Amino acid sequence: MIAQSWLDEIAWNADGLVPAVAQDAASGEVLMLAWMNRESLARTVASGEATYWSRSRGALWRKGETSGHVQKVVEVRLDCDGDTVVLRVESVGGVACHTGRRRCFFRLLEGAGGERRWSVTDPVLEAPADHG
Amino acid sequence: MIAQSWLDEIAWNADGLVPAVAQDAASGEVLMLAWMNRESLARTVASGEATYWSRSRGALWRKGETSGHVQKVVEVRLDCDGDTVVLRVESVGGVACHTGRRRCFFRLLEGAGGERRWSVTDPVLEAPADHG
Repeated sequence: MIAQSWLDEIAWNADGLVPAVAQDAASGEVLMLAWMNRESLARTVASGEATYWSRSRGALWRKGETSGHVQKVVEVRLDCDGDTVVLRVESVGGVACHTGRRRCFFRLLEGAGGERRWSVTDPVLEAPADHG
Repeated sequence: MIAQSWLDEIAWNADGLVPAVAQDAASGEVLMLAWMNRESLARTVASGEATYWSRSRGALWRKGETSGHVQKVVEVRLDCDGDTVVLRVESVGGVACHTGRRRCFFRLLEGAGGERRWSVTDPVLEAPADHG
Protein backbone atom coordinates (compact mmCIF):
# COMPACT_ATOMS: atom_id res chain seq x y z
CA MET A 1 0.00 0.00 0.00
CA ILE A 2 1.29 3.39 -0.96
CA ALA A 3 0.15 5.82 1.75
CA GLN A 4 -0.11 9.13 -0.03
CA SER A 5 -3.25 11.16 0.49
CA TRP A 6 -3.20 12.75 -2.98
CA LEU A 7 -3.60 9.24 -4.41
CA ASP A 8 -6.65 8.68 -2.19
CA GLU A 9 -8.40 11.61 -3.86
CA ILE A 10 -8.51 9.72 -7.14
CA ALA A 11 -11.70 7.85 -8.03
CA TRP A 12 -10.15 4.58 -9.25
CA ASN A 13 -12.58 2.46 -11.23
CA ALA A 14 -13.72 -1.06 -10.29
CA ASP A 15 -10.44 -2.42 -11.71
CA GLY A 16 -8.39 0.11 -9.73
CA LEU A 17 -7.56 2.11 -12.85
CA VAL A 18 -8.00 5.58 -14.33
CA PRO A 19 -7.48 6.72 -17.91
CA ALA A 20 -4.42 8.92 -18.37
CA VAL A 21 -4.25 11.30 -21.32
CA ALA A 22 -0.72 12.21 -22.39
CA GLN A 23 -0.41 15.60 -24.04
CA ASP A 24 2.72 17.01 -25.64
CA ALA A 25 3.81 19.90 -23.42
CA ALA A 26 5.32 21.81 -26.32
CA SER A 27 2.83 21.34 -29.16
CA GLY A 28 -0.32 20.64 -27.14
CA GLU A 29 -1.06 17.57 -29.27
CA VAL A 30 -2.89 14.73 -27.55
CA LEU A 31 -0.39 11.90 -27.93
CA MET A 32 -2.10 8.85 -26.43
CA LEU A 33 -4.46 7.52 -23.80
CA ALA A 34 -3.34 4.72 -21.51
CA TRP A 35 -4.38 3.44 -18.09
CA MET A 36 -2.83 3.84 -14.67
CA ASN A 37 -3.26 2.07 -11.39
CA ARG A 38 -2.21 3.49 -8.05
CA GLU A 39 1.32 2.15 -8.27
CA SER A 40 1.89 3.37 -11.81
CA LEU A 41 0.80 6.91 -10.94
CA ALA A 42 2.90 6.90 -7.76
CA ARG A 43 5.93 5.76 -9.80
CA THR A 44 5.23 8.32 -12.51
CA VAL A 45 5.22 11.16 -10.02
CA ALA A 46 8.19 9.90 -8.02
CA SER A 47 10.36 9.31 -11.10
CA GLY A 48 9.09 12.11 -13.34
CA GLU A 49 8.64 9.63 -16.18
CA ALA A 50 5.31 8.16 -17.29
CA THR A 51 4.59 4.60 -16.15
CA TYR A 52 1.26 3.11 -17.20
CA TRP A 53 -0.58 -0.12 -16.46
CA SER A 54 -0.81 -2.41 -19.47
CA ARG A 55 -4.25 -4.01 -19.34
CA SER A 56 -3.30 -6.52 -22.06
CA ARG A 57 -0.15 -7.65 -20.27
CA GLY A 58 -1.40 -7.10 -16.74
CA ALA A 59 1.84 -5.39 -15.82
CA LEU A 60 3.39 -2.02 -15.12
CA TRP A 61 4.67 -0.47 -18.32
CA ARG A 62 7.32 2.20 -18.10
CA LYS A 63 6.78 4.14 -21.29
CA GLY A 64 9.93 3.95 -23.38
CA GLU A 65 11.40 0.97 -21.54
CA THR A 66 12.00 -0.84 -24.84
CA SER A 67 11.68 1.98 -27.40
CA GLY A 68 13.61 4.68 -25.57
CA HIS A 69 10.66 7.01 -26.08
CA VAL A 70 10.35 8.04 -22.47
CA GLN A 71 7.76 10.64 -21.49
CA LYS A 72 9.15 13.23 -19.08
CA VAL A 73 6.29 14.55 -17.01
CA VAL A 74 5.95 18.33 -16.86
CA GLU A 75 2.52 18.51 -15.20
CA VAL A 76 -0.13 16.16 -13.77
CA ARG A 77 -3.76 17.29 -13.67
CA LEU A 78 -6.92 15.71 -12.25
CA ASP A 79 -10.48 16.35 -13.40
CA CYS A 80 -13.58 17.42 -11.51
CA ASP A 81 -14.77 13.86 -10.87
CA GLY A 82 -11.27 12.70 -9.97
CA ASP A 83 -11.49 9.82 -12.42
CA THR A 84 -9.17 10.95 -15.24
CA VAL A 85 -5.67 12.40 -15.26
CA VAL A 86 -3.87 14.46 -17.87
CA LEU A 87 -0.09 14.36 -18.12
CA ARG A 88 1.70 17.12 -19.97
CA VAL A 89 4.88 15.47 -21.16
CA GLU A 90 8.06 15.93 -23.09
CA SER A 91 7.91 13.10 -25.62
CA VAL A 92 11.55 12.02 -25.94
CA GLY A 93 12.48 11.32 -29.54
CA GLY A 94 9.16 12.72 -30.72
CA VAL A 95 7.51 9.31 -31.12
CA ALA A 96 4.74 8.31 -28.71
CA CYS A 97 2.98 5.58 -30.73
CA HIS A 98 4.15 1.97 -31.09
CA THR A 99 3.45 2.33 -34.83
CA GLY A 100 6.42 4.72 -34.97
CA ARG A 101 4.30 7.83 -35.29
CA ARG A 102 4.39 11.06 -33.30
CA ARG A 103 1.04 10.32 -31.66
CA CYS A 104 -1.47 7.48 -31.50
CA PHE A 105 -4.30 9.67 -32.86
CA PHE A 106 -3.04 9.57 -36.45
CA ARG A 107 -6.43 8.79 -38.02
CA LEU A 108 -8.75 11.65 -38.94
CA LEU A 109 -12.42 11.23 -39.82
CA GLU A 110 -12.95 12.66 -43.29
CA GLY A 111 -15.82 12.92 -45.75
CA ALA A 112 -19.46 13.85 -45.26
CA GLY A 113 -22.89 12.29 -44.91
CA GLY A 114 -22.86 8.55 -45.61
CA GLU A 115 -19.34 8.68 -47.05
CA ARG A 116 -17.03 8.97 -44.11
CA ARG A 117 -13.70 7.23 -43.58
CA TRP A 118 -10.69 7.27 -41.27
CA SER A 119 -7.74 8.78 -43.09
CA VAL A 120 -4.13 8.39 -41.90
CA THR A 121 -2.63 11.87 -41.56
CA ASP A 122 0.69 11.27 -39.81
CA PRO A 123 3.85 9.68 -41.26
CA VAL A 124 5.72 6.75 -39.72
CA LEU A 125 8.95 8.20 -38.36
CA GLU A 126 10.64 4.97 -37.33
CA ALA A 127 10.13 1.20 -37.40
CA PRO A 128 7.13 0.01 -35.38
CA ALA A 129 7.79 -1.56 -31.96
CA ASP A 130 6.09 -4.42 -30.13
CA HIS A 131 5.01 -1.89 -27.59
CA GLY A 132 6.05 1.62 -26.65
CA MET B 1 -28.34 -0.42 -35.80
CA ILE B 2 -26.43 2.36 -37.46
CA ALA B 3 -24.83 0.89 -40.60
CA GLN B 4 -21.75 3.02 -41.09
CA SER B 5 -18.48 1.22 -41.71
CA TRP B 6 -16.34 3.88 -40.04
CA LEU B 7 -18.15 3.09 -36.80
CA ASP B 8 -17.31 -0.60 -37.22
CA GLU B 9 -13.61 0.24 -37.12
CA ILE B 10 -13.91 1.35 -33.52
CA ALA B 11 -12.98 -1.13 -30.79
CA TRP B 12 -15.92 -0.56 -28.44
CA ASN B 13 -15.30 -1.95 -24.96
CA ALA B 14 -17.40 -4.66 -23.26
CA ASP B 15 -20.00 -2.00 -22.39
CA GLY B 16 -20.09 -0.71 -25.98
CA LEU B 17 -18.22 2.48 -25.05
CA VAL B 18 -15.01 4.33 -25.84
CA PRO B 19 -13.43 7.24 -23.96
CA ALA B 20 -13.64 10.55 -25.83
CA VAL B 21 -11.15 13.30 -25.05
CA ALA B 22 -12.40 16.80 -25.85
CA GLN B 23 -9.66 19.28 -26.68
CA ASP B 24 -10.13 22.99 -27.24
CA ALA B 25 -9.42 23.56 -30.94
CA ALA B 26 -8.12 27.08 -30.33
CA SER B 27 -6.03 26.78 -27.16
CA GLY B 28 -5.16 23.07 -27.33
CA GLU B 29 -6.24 22.62 -23.71
CA VAL B 30 -7.65 19.22 -22.79
CA LEU B 31 -11.14 20.15 -21.59
CA MET B 32 -12.72 16.88 -20.41
CA LEU B 33 -12.97 13.15 -20.91
CA ALA B 34 -16.37 11.54 -21.33
CA TRP B 35 -17.68 8.32 -22.85
CA MET B 36 -19.41 7.58 -26.13
CA ASN B 37 -21.40 4.68 -27.44
CA ARG B 38 -22.05 4.02 -31.11
CA GLU B 39 -25.16 6.17 -31.24
CA SER B 40 -23.58 9.12 -29.44
CA LEU B 41 -20.62 9.17 -31.82
CA ALA B 42 -22.90 8.82 -34.85
CA ARG B 43 -25.01 11.75 -33.59
CA THR B 44 -21.91 13.80 -32.81
CA VAL B 45 -20.61 13.42 -36.34
CA ALA B 46 -24.00 13.91 -38.01
CA SER B 47 -24.86 17.04 -36.02
CA GLY B 48 -21.38 18.51 -35.59
CA GLU B 49 -22.00 18.89 -31.85
CA ALA B 50 -20.64 16.59 -29.15
CA THR B 51 -23.08 14.05 -27.71
CA TYR B 52 -21.74 11.71 -25.04
CA TRP B 53 -23.10 8.73 -23.13
CA SER B 54 -23.70 9.45 -19.48
CA ARG B 55 -22.72 6.31 -17.59
CA SER B 56 -24.29 7.61 -14.38
CA ARG B 57 -27.63 8.39 -15.99
CA GLY B 58 -27.53 5.63 -18.62
CA ALA B 59 -28.61 8.09 -21.30
CA LEU B 60 -27.38 10.08 -24.25
CA TRP B 61 -26.10 13.45 -23.14
CA ARG B 62 -25.93 16.23 -25.67
CA LYS B 63 -23.22 18.46 -24.23
CA GLY B 64 -24.70 21.86 -23.50
CA GLU B 65 -28.32 20.70 -23.59
CA THR B 66 -28.98 22.37 -20.24
CA SER B 67 -25.99 24.71 -19.85
CA GLY B 68 -25.83 26.04 -23.40
CA HIS B 69 -22.15 25.12 -23.48
CA VAL B 70 -22.31 23.18 -26.70
CA GLN B 71 -19.12 21.74 -28.18
CA LYS B 72 -18.87 22.33 -31.93
CA VAL B 73 -16.75 19.56 -33.39
CA VAL B 74 -13.87 20.66 -35.61
CA GLU B 75 -12.10 17.32 -35.92
CA VAL B 76 -12.55 13.68 -34.83
CA ARG B 77 -9.48 11.45 -34.45
CA LEU B 78 -9.07 7.76 -33.65
CA ASP B 79 -6.03 6.12 -32.08
CA CYS B 80 -3.87 3.19 -33.19
CA ASP B 81 -5.88 0.62 -31.23
CA GLY B 82 -9.18 2.15 -32.29
CA ASP B 83 -10.36 2.34 -28.69
CA THR B 84 -10.15 6.08 -27.95
CA VAL B 85 -11.30 9.15 -29.83
CA VAL B 86 -10.17 12.76 -29.61
CA LEU B 87 -12.54 15.57 -30.50
CA ARG B 88 -11.12 18.98 -31.25
CA VAL B 89 -13.94 21.32 -30.38
CA GLU B 90 -15.01 24.91 -30.16
CA SER B 91 -16.19 25.21 -26.55
CA VAL B 92 -19.16 27.58 -26.80
CA GLY B 93 -19.14 30.10 -23.96
CA GLY B 94 -15.70 28.96 -22.88
CA VAL B 95 -16.98 26.70 -20.08
CA ALA B 96 -16.68 22.92 -20.46
CA CYS B 97 -16.95 21.80 -16.82
CA HIS B 98 -20.15 21.47 -14.80
CA THR B 99 -18.33 23.29 -11.98
CA GLY B 100 -18.43 26.42 -14.16
CA ARG B 101 -14.77 26.26 -15.10
CA ARG B 102 -13.13 26.39 -18.51
CA ARG B 103 -12.03 22.76 -18.30
CA CYS B 104 -12.54 19.79 -16.01
CA PHE B 105 -8.78 19.40 -15.40
CA PHE B 106 -8.55 22.34 -13.02
CA ARG B 107 -6.53 20.53 -10.37
CA LEU B 108 -2.73 20.50 -10.64
CA LEU B 109 -0.46 18.23 -8.61
CA GLU B 110 1.96 20.43 -6.69
CA GLY B 111 4.68 19.89 -4.13
CA ALA B 112 7.50 17.37 -3.93
CA GLY B 113 8.42 14.10 -2.24
CA GLY B 114 5.94 13.11 0.48
CA GLU B 115 4.25 16.52 0.43
CA ARG B 116 2.11 16.58 -2.69
CA ARG B 117 -1.38 17.98 -3.07
CA TRP B 118 -3.94 18.81 -5.73
CA SER B 119 -4.18 22.57 -6.14
CA VAL B 120 -7.07 24.31 -7.90
CA THR B 121 -5.63 26.52 -10.64
CA ASP B 122 -8.67 27.65 -12.62
CA PRO B 123 -11.35 30.14 -11.56
CA VAL B 124 -15.09 29.47 -11.57
CA LEU B 125 -16.49 31.54 -14.42
CA GLU B 126 -20.18 30.92 -13.83
CA ALA B 127 -22.54 29.16 -11.42
CA PRO B 128 -22.11 25.38 -11.32
CA ALA B 129 -24.69 23.25 -13.18
CA ASP B 130 -26.22 19.87 -12.36
CA HIS B 131 -24.53 18.59 -15.45
CA GLY B 132 -22.98 20.15 -18.51
